[in-house]
Amino acid sequence: MTLEEERVARAALSRVFEPGDWRITEMVTRFGAIGLYARLRRGDGLSGVFADAAARLAGCDPDTELATAARLGVRFVIPGDQEWPEQLDDLASAEPLNNRAGTPIGLWAKGPVRLNTLAASVAVVGSRAATTYGDQLAADIGRTLAEAGSPVVSGAAFGIDRAAHRGALAGGGPTIAVLACGVDRAYPKAHASLLEHLATFGAVVSEAPLGCAPQRIRFLARNRLIAALTRGTVIVEAAVRSGALNTANWANRLNRPVMGVPGPVTSTPSGGVHQLIRTGGAALVTNGQEVLEMVGAVGEHLLEEPRGPVGPRDALSLKQQQVLDAVPVSNGAAADSIARVAGLAPPEVATALGHLHAAGLVEQDQDGWRLAALAHP
Amino acid sequence: MTLEEERVARAALSRVFEPGDWRITEMVTRFGAIGLYARLRRGDGLSGVFADAAARLAGCDPDTELATAARLGVRFVIPGDQEWPEQLDDLASAEPLNNRAGTPIGLWAKGPVRLNTLAASVAVVGSRAATTYGDQLAADIGRTLAEAGSPVVSGAAFGIDRAAHRGALAGGGPTIAVLACGVDRAYPKAHASLLEHLATFGAVVSEAPLGCAPQRIRFLARNRLIAALTRGTVIVEAAVRSGALNTANWANRLNRPVMGVPGPVTSTPSGGVHQLIRTGGAALVTNGQEVLEMVGAVGEHLLEEPRGPVGPRDALSLKQQQVLDAVPVSNGAAADSIARVAGLAPPEVATALGHLHAAGLVEQDQDGWRLAALAHP
Repeated sequence: MTLEEERVARAALSRVFEPGDWRITEMVTRFGAIGLYARLRRGDGLSGVFADAAARLAGCDPDTELATAARLGVRFVIPGDQEWPEQLDDLASAEPLNNRAGTPIGLWAKGPVRLNTLAASVAVVGSRAATTYGDQLAADIGRTLAEAGSPVVSGAAFGIDRAAHRGALAGGGPTIAVLACGVDRAYPKAHASLLEHLATFGAVVSEAPLGCAPQRIRFLARNRLIAALTRGTVIVEAAVRSGALNTANWANRLNRPVMGVPGPVTSTPSGGVHQLIRTGGAALVTNGQEVLEMVGAVGEHLLEEPRGPVGPRDALSLKQQQVLDAVPVSNGAAADSIARVAGLAPPEVATALGHLHAAGLVEQDQDGWRLAALAHP
Repeated sequence: MTLEEERVARAALSRVFEPGDWRITEMVTRFGAIGLYARLRRGDGLSGVFADAAARLAGCDPDTELATAARLGVRFVIPGDQEWPEQLDDLASAEPLNNRAGTPIGLWAKGPVRLNTLAASVAVVGSRAATTYGDQLAADIGRTLAEAGSPVVSGAAFGIDRAAHRGALAGGGPTIAVLACGVDRAYPKAHASLLEHLATFGAVVSEAPLGCAPQRIRFLARNRLIAALTRGTVIVEAAVRSGALNTANWANRLNRPVMGVPGPVTSTPSGGVHQLIRTGGAALVTNGQEVLEMVGAVGEHLLEEPRGPVGPRDALSLKQQQVLDAVPVSNGAAADSIARVAGLAPPEVATALGHLHAAGLVEQDQDGWRLAALAHP
């Protein structure tokens, strides 16, 4: 049995079964594609989903399908190929969600990016009905990832998906669209030229064979691939019932980091992200650097926590700060008066004032001590 | 030794020591206020902070201070009083932060709200430089808390503090300001009438005696009281180095829930809140109901997670949904064509179409099946 026999069998199975149907992917993983294909062709003793598939097999010619695909520049990547992205094998042990599960039977792919180079990729997904805020952030994150050499993976929908690809392209990095329909179909139609661009400079990938329509169930199957191909998933905007949360769910199931970008609590497209963070389903991130830190190897991309500005006060002892806080801003005051306000003994105030004067934080006028310009609040 | 002797001793200690100086609060908790007061008055063998305090004690008359306070409507609440808020005793075992720690020596309070009624209170704090977004949210949360019978505790600063009080007052609930200065001082000056209002309908509280100036170090001591008085702390907006994060830090130290309200990642006053959530220092909340759920007893205020709208599709099986997704929107298509698009066998498509028709989701025209208005995307 050669790899090409295996490819023909898998191409046929890819045509007659729904993407990610866990009953089938599990069986293929366990018993092999060639055995299942032979059994379907014999057709005896089958029932249910297998009898249905055997019936559909009659109108199916996998050799011709593979030849047609090749003519269109589409390759069918299967386990055993050098190009196979091994991280997908994690799907074999993850529980089903919406009855979708398992390692895909194969991936139909178009474009120069090889699928075995996606181990360091990051998924950036979110709402189709994104706001300008979400679009901008998805593009910024896509760009930061691309600039850091991390491929971006997303769908091909309006809103966040498109913005993530746009940002990655601006960052000069590879970006990959995983589709719910065949890679020869443009869905949505308005993204035909985006998809063509991705197929020229990145890759367009699908578990569904050529010609397949984008159906809801195929989006659910597709989401598990986006989560499994990448080392982490970022949700930029997602309303409470957005499909992006299904991708997040898959990433959690696969123990990949899930990250959410917050927004105004008054913004509906941030509602699902906030809920996800709130319930522990995602970590909060605010930019691409934080995403890289989260998905990176230990010590890689470690961020310094942002700090406020360091001012001259920061070098003072607490007692010196206390005295400084009791020094008037405008008209000077005597040291005794400052001691009273500060609630400290005159000798300690005198010592502190000496230090503050040397540091240029206080100055003297005819009435006594006042704040120097440097120390003004 | 009566409670009134204890009160006099504590009033004197309150005058000569800085609020929350952990060296003193610890000693008072361990050895008693009356003993320490007597020792300071004898004055022998003292050094450091205790020698300084003994020196300051000369100009101090606690009986007169208490009488003056009473004349101004200010009471000095101490441990042992019925009004003492016992949750503050949790401070006795918490580690110092900025050298502040410990149960306060006493609380100077003005206003009708009794301090022993604050066990169910919630702190709402944040940036002085709040945005309109933050102001609105703080007011909304303050109002929701007040309406649910939860007193609100905050400072008296511009921005979030003021908005939280305003919201609580609108909700008809008690609201309490904890100050860094004496309760007879208005800081900031522009909040004189707000403070007067709070002293009339809620309470104004401070660990610092009358006349004390608001100093940076006293804000740090004050923050621990806000955290300790309440059963949880909400940070609405806080820049990366905001004092509100010091309050959050105290609440975490005391094992009280800390909650943060997210905002746009592009908004500086949300930066500290995002950092806090990101590093596990706060849970994300988006409204007052979620705050109540978080601080409530188990089962109390349990929220139903928000869900998107439930549509007619939700009652369908996955296969029925798959068929529905393959039915054209405008011109009808034959069942065979739908089966091909859906990638399903004609018999199962026929069964599904029958169900969808009965549910009013598809209809027939001269060309075949199309979506009914109910099922339009």
